[in-house]
Order: sequence, then structure tokens, then C-alpha cells
Amino acid sequence: MRVLLIGFGTVGQGVAEILLEKRDYLAKEKGMEFNVVGIFDKELGGVYRPQGINLEEALETIHSGGNLTQVHGESLDEDPSGFIQKAEAEVMVEMTYTDLKTAQPATSYIRAALDGNMHVVTTNKGPVALNYKDLSIHAAENGLEFLFEGTVMSGTPLISVIQENLISSHIREVKGILNGTTNYILSRMEEGLSYQKALEKSQELGYAEAQPEADVRGWDALAKVSILANVIFGANRKPFDYPCEGITEVSANDLIRVKDQGKRIKLIGKTWMEGNFVKASVGPEEIDFTHPLAGVKGAFNALTITTEDVGEVTIVGPGAGQRESAYGVLRDLMAIGGKQ
Amino acid sequence: MRVLLIGFGTVGQGVAEILLEKRDYLAKEKGMEFNVVGIFDKELGGVYRPQGINLEEALETIHSGGNLTQVHGESLDEDPSGFIQKAEAEVMVEMTYTDLKTAQPATSYIRAALDGNMHVVTTNKGPVALNYKDLSIHAAENGLEFLFEGTVMSGTPLISVIQENLISSHIREVKGILNGTTNYILSRMEEGLSYQKALEKSQELGYAEAQPEADVRGWDALAKVSILANVIFGANRKPFDYPCEGITEVSANDLIRVKDQGKRIKLIGKTWMEGNFVKASVGPEEIDFTHPLAGVKGAFNALTITTEDVGEVTIVGPGAGQRESAYGVLRDLMAIGGKQ
Repeated sequence: MRVLLIGFGTVGQGVAEILLEKRDYLAKEKGMEFNVVGIFDKELGGVYRPQGINLEEALETIHSGGNLTQVHGESLDEDPSGFIQKAEAEVMVEMTYTDLKTAQPATSYIRAALDGNMHVVTTNKGPVALNYKDLSIHAAENGLEFLFEGTVMSGTPLISVIQENLISSHIREVKGILNGTTNYILSRMEEGLSYQKALEKSQELGYAEAQPEADVRGWDALAKVSILANVIFGANRKPFDYPCEGITEVSANDLIRVKDQGKRIKLIGKTWMEGNFVKASVGPEEIDFTHPLAGVKGAFNALTITTEDVGEVTIVGPGAGQRESAYGVLRDLMAIGGKQ
Repeated sequence: MRVLLIGFGTVGQGVAEILLEKRDYLAKEKGMEFNVVGIFDKELGGVYRPQGINLEEALETIHSGGNLTQVHGESLDEDPSGFIQKAEAEVMVEMTYTDLKTAQPATSYIRAALDGNMHVVTTNKGPVALNYKDLSIHAAENGLEFLFEGTVMSGTPLISVIQENLISSHIREVKGILNGTTNYILSRMEEGLSYQKALEKSQELGYAEAQPEADVRGWDALAKVSILANVIFGANRKPFDYPCEGITEVSANDLIRVKDQGKRIKLIGKTWMEGNFVKASVGPEEIDFTHPLAGVKGAFNALTITTEDVGEVTIVGPGAGQRESAYGVLRDLMAIGGKQ
């Protein structure tokens, strides 16, 4: 299978690495070969080579401060939409930055790929949170896959578990800890650190960005809740249509007070049906110690899926990370490969 | 797809119920139809009807104390192996009782079905714990599926998550609480009940059998550990080749003592690689409060899967139950239906 990688930052480079490392395994155990024929990145330029790009060369070039146009193949340096549609490939992996207001340019890239008869894998929350319905219909009409395991809880099996398994169990609600940075901050605050100190710690560890708004104001969790509402309940609203509160108003005192009552404050994202309406929200909640979500510490994420048929199922795992996100992409590529 | 149900106890009846309830959903949403053409049970007799058995009639007959031979169709009342092989069906669902020493008669039934060109779904731990390698090769050689989601943690997505997703993430160890009865007993003992009282409570609630050996001596967890060792690490040993200790020697004092050290005693089943050797064991272990397994209370089960690529993923969910197990079977039937 010929693959385009659009976006070659942390996740894109992680995908190149995992494809290199697992090349023999995939060929031997799965009978699959993924041949990267195009890479494009807004900052790093692009390269196209129908016979296949040397991924070691591409990674070394970037690691040593170079540009993708220096890699063996045809150079690309403009907007990739035209290139995507004309490229000879079976799947595009879209890993550009998330914009929750416009979902662009990712959505245009995805439409170009689907028009070019390519399956699409994305780790980008924007297009799935804002345009899931359109894009999944567009893909289905062309007999193509549109997969996005990496958008929620990175490589932890979650979206695929819902879509391929629990979707038929009559899901009533999903509720969880969908942002590792804020969960880390709350965990440290419970140990006695102030919000400011805990935030600084999380920035030192690389969990929180220098501009931490998307995490601490709940927007990242909100994007994931929107994705879940779209996939599970067929919602079609924009993330900012749902109520969203972050952790900026939570104090260390609040955390200590509820702890004495056998509870823990967590930033909870959830979506559920109320009559015929899809509801969703993000905000701090007091969770009883006996609930599986209460024990989720540090940068881990977790989601409890409440169903008619199998009761409560909780999945706990990493919510971010280069390797983890790359594995999410690989799982989607293998799912596509398995259907060829 | 035409389906045979072999074993019509709690789980078998649950499967009939879920197929009835979800008939419209499956037709409309999945484009799938499961038509039960044969039911056989050692105690309740059997019926075969190539046009399809009326499942309402079969359930009502059994609920009112009747026998399957009274149900509209051709009566069956002998050993079903010959019948299985000749029956006109695409899938056999095997749900007879578990025998961990011989895995019979289940293994013979499964071989008969594979020889008769049927896919096989089972909820029976015996054949998968003892004969996974043979049976999976037998199935693969005939281009057939051999699926068993319901054998470990009933309908909680677990076996499918491992086989379809995490299997490529370089799994190093799996470790978990695989028996709900003993977890319930330990949870109650931690609250102050004696072992004997907690056991009686679990019998009242229907968790533990009148003969509770298979649970309290760890054999049920051992069977599940063997299944995981077979599927993940390609082990080919019998369950009783692995060290196994139950909870009969755990005292309320032990539980209270370790609680003061921030730990909880859990009956832990695990399997891992040591060099080229597959290791596995079942026994009580002290689990730190901070580990996701420590918070798993009552009759819930959980498994932590430690991988190279996605770190630690923990799945928590029900470990037993009629509806839950029936959903596990349905998920396997849908997986087969999706590939037709």
C-alpha cells in the first residue's frame, strides 16, 4: 500500500519510525507493506517519489536540521491539495495541527484525498470534531475508509473498540478523563502544589504548551467529547456549542475538601442522550473513590462507556505521546491493509 | 447467516434473546441476518429446522419447563457431532460446560464444525485453553474464523482488542483480575467479613457455585491466563502446568495489614515472556493503591496490558453475566458477518 504522510512533526516522524521498525514484522506476520511515497509538511517542505521514499534518509535529514526537499525524490513546496489528489497512493495519513474553529487546512486535504480515491487516516481532532458526518459519508460513498484512532487517547484502543465492538451494545453514556495535562495538574495539586506550580511542572515535563489554554480551559477535552458524540450518537454540532469549563477555577482547597469526603476532582468530558437530544459537556466533577476514573493518575486518560448490554466498561491508557500516537496510525493502516 | 447453538443453558438462552432483540437493528444498521437453524443441549434435547427455528417458541418452551424436542422442527436427541458436521449452517456457537482437563466434548464439536466448513464461536474456556493452536490452525487452513471473545471477561472487549489491535504493539506482559467471585470475596473481606461469610454472600448473590473450588482455588482465572498465553505468546502448555494458588489461604488480617501499607490483595493472573519462555501464574498479590487494578471492586474484572508501543493499557469491565456473555457471542458473530 502506498502512503502519503501530510504533516511531519512529532507524530509524522513517529509514524515514519514505527513503519521502519515494524517493516519486517508487518511483511512476515501480516503480509502487509506500507510504502511511503509522499511526505509534506508546512514547515519542512515536501518530497514525492512514486517508487518509495527512503524513510531513514527523510528522518536523518530532518534530525540534522534539513528540509524534506533535500530528500531523494521530486520536491514539493506549495500547498499540497493539488498534489494529494493526483498522487499515486492508496492512503493518506493527515497529521497537521488542530484548528477547532475551522478544521482547516486538514479538512481540505482530507477531501482532496477522498476525491483522489484514497483511504484517510487522521490524528487531527479538528476534521473529526467539526466535519465527521460529511467526511464519513464522503468516504463511504467512495468505498473508502476514514479512520482516526489517534484522535482520542492516542494509541490506546478506544475509537476502534467503540466502532467495531461496543457500538451495538446500546451505549447510553461515555464519560472520562480525556486530557492528560489537566489530569496531571490536578493530581499534583492534590499532593499540595498550587495551580501555578503544578502548571509549571507540567510545562517542564512537556505535557503543557507554553500557551496552555487549550488544555486548562478544557478545549482539547471538548474536541474529543465532540468526536465521541459524533461517532456514538450521530451528533452534528460544533465543539463550542457544548458547555465547557476548564480547571482554572479549581483550587487546592477544593481538592482537599472533597478528598475528605472520599472523592476526587477530575476534569470530566462526557456525552449522553437525553430523549432525542445529544448532550455533551466538559467540566470539573467530583468522582467517588470507588469509581474506576478516580484512580486515574498523572498524564493517563480513561473513558467509561456505559452500555445496556455489557454494563460499564472502562479503558485506561496513555492519552498522548509520539510513539503512542504513531501506533494509533499504524493500527488504522493495518485495519485498511486487512481489508484489501 | 445460518447459526447452530450448541449448549442452551444461561449463555445459550441469552444469545437467543439478544438475537431476537437486535434482529431489526442488525438488519437495518449492519445488513446482517442471523438465522438459528439448530439448537442442541445435553439436558434439554435438540431441534433442527433448516428454514430457521422460532426463537421465541424455543425460549418459551424452555422457560415453561419443556424440552427442545417439543419445538417446531426435526428433533435431535443423541450426541450432536454427526449432526453438526452435516447441518446446513455457516457458524456454530459452542457454549457447553468447561472441562479444563479434557476440553471435551467441546473440542470434538468444534472439530466437527470446522470439518463441516463452519466458522466457530465459543464461550467455553476449555478448548481455547487446551487446544488453541490446533484449532486455530485447523480453522485458518479452511479459511474459517475461530473466535472466543466471551471466554475472558465475558462481553467486555478484550480478546478482540488484543487480536485486532494490541497484538502488534509488542506486548510484554498481561496481568489482571480475571475472576469476579474471588474479587468479590476479597472486597468483602477487606470490609471485615470472614472468608466463610464472604463466600456465603457470594453464593447468595449467585457469583459462586455451591462447589466453589474452580473459583476460590484459582482454576477459572488459570484457564483465562492460559488462553491469554496461547493467544499473545503462542504458548502451548496446559493450564495446570502453570503455578496456581487461590484465595483460600488469604485471611482478613492479611488484607487489613497490607491496606495500612497502601496496598490491596488481589487474585492476579498473569502471563509474560522470560527470554524465550512463556511464563504464567495465578496467585494472590499485593497491588499498590496507585495501580489501576487496585481500584477494581466487587465482581468486576480487569486486565492491564503492558506494551512497548502504547505503554500500559487497562480494560475494566464485567467478567460474567448472561447478557454480557451473549454480547460477546454477538460481537463475534458480527465480526464473521462483516467479513462475508
